[in-house]
Amino acid sequence: MPAPIEVWTWPTPNGHKVHIMLEEIGLPYTIVPVAIGKGEQFRPEFLAITPNHRIPAIVDPGGPGGERFSLFESGAILIYLAEKAASDLLPKDPATRYRCLQWVMFQMGGVGPMFGQYNHFANYAAEKLPYAIERYTNEVARLHRVLDKRLGESAYLAGPDYSIADIATFPWIRNPDRRNVDLGQYPNVKRWHDAIAARPAVQRGVAVLAENQRRGTMTDAEREIMFGKTQFAVR
Amino acid sequence: MPAPIEVWTWPTPNGHKVHIMLEEIGLPYTIVPVAIGKGEQFRPEFLAITPNHRIPAIVDPGGPGGERFSLFESGAILIYLAEKAASDLLPKDPATRYRCLQWVMFQMGGVGPMFGQYNHFANYAAEKLPYAIERYTNEVARLHRVLDKRLGESAYLAGPDYSIADIATFPWIRNPDRRNVDLGQYPNVKRWHDAIAARPAVQRGVAVLAENQRRGTMTDAEREIMFGKTQFAVR
Repeated sequence: MPAPIEVWTWPTPNGHKVHIMLEEIGLPYTIVPVAIGKGEQFRPEFLAITPNHRIPAIVDPGGPGGERFSLFESGAILIYLAEKAASDLLPKDPATRYRCLQWVMFQMGGVGPMFGQYNHFANYAAEKLPYAIERYTNEVARLHRVLDKRLGESAYLAGPDYSIADIATFPWIRNPDRRNVDLGQYPNVKRWHDAIAARPAVQRGVAVLAENQRRGTMTDAEREIMFGKTQFAVR
Repeated sequence: MPAPIEVWTWPTPNGHKVHIMLEEIGLPYTIVPVAIGKGEQFRPEFLAITPNHRIPAIVDPGGPGGERFSLFESGAILIYLAEKAASDLLPKDPATRYRCLQWVMFQMGGVGPMFGQYNHFANYAAEKLPYAIERYTNEVARLHRVLDKRLGESAYLAGPDYSIADIATFPWIRNPDRRNVDLGQYPNVKRWHDAIAARPAVQRGVAVLAENQRRGTMTDAEREIMFGKTQFAVR
């Protein structure tokens, strides 16, 4: 039995990617909660793993060459875990593998950051700015349309089979109410979402630390920690 | 001599990543300009390659299995090209390779989107919103500090050698004036920037289509195409 992988995480979409992946591949892991609303992402022991003070990060006692290995950035962690488990969740057919990486990057560079900006301006920012809210509302809708187009021609993002591209994207599509999105407008995304949501490993993954999940409210103290001077003062 | 790879592109940071990469590995390529200020990213022939109507995208006549293969998302293209050329720009040592992918993801999910939002609110948006400008000014500075910390302990982002993580990030660090950044505040980033800027392949890469490079101004017509209803109406 390999030593469990430490997962430094919190129940956000980026955290859920890694929880779901570990449940899918069945590698043992332990959770190290990083309560980002309380500022635990600025603790020295976490900054030693990631200078970016963002969850998730992992520490694998049995990394490459049998050495202890730490890694951050959810997209890189998904690739690492797929290869460690020799899993087809990173497809082995070259063309399908590159398409998988393409859609992982689309999530990392588009869906994640843009949905995150929507959340910031619509749900969290103390100041409500119509221009910014409209900008990201439009972009969230556009990205759903791109996904809907792809999922109208392919069962899953990379191709016929479920992959890390879906694992990366699904946590940002569930809870559409948070972004005022009606998934019924995107029937291919809805079909895909429902198929993934029914997977037992996905249900176990999104249950990790679920009791700490944000319900859309934020105190002023949390807002300061998440968006105020604190994070910009970290060295 | 393999058939040249078509690069559908424009002289933006994401385009430059691919131009630099192709110059570094020496694979033959042809440029297909996609004038994004004129709306050429909405043409059907481009949408057939990428439903996301974003440059860059490539079409390789000699893709996997010798088949014609198209790929979008600059981060995925860098991995594809490195593996096609069997290049050490994606390091072969496993730990270094994963660190390389980690920093590629940091660029894709952090540096690119956040610098892009800064550009939008500070340089391009018709409405100047102090809250948004301050938010992204702080985030641009924070991301430079993260890079400076990493580059204080390592010659390049992935490790001792130049890699696709540097190729992904460099185009967003050059032209610091665009983001009102003084690279002198980040001495390790400055050292790294200067070493990369001196590479002949990098100089050839950033010269691609340079005559079309935006100088910070934007007409109302361009603004509509880039940020207005046009892009949100594309199906």
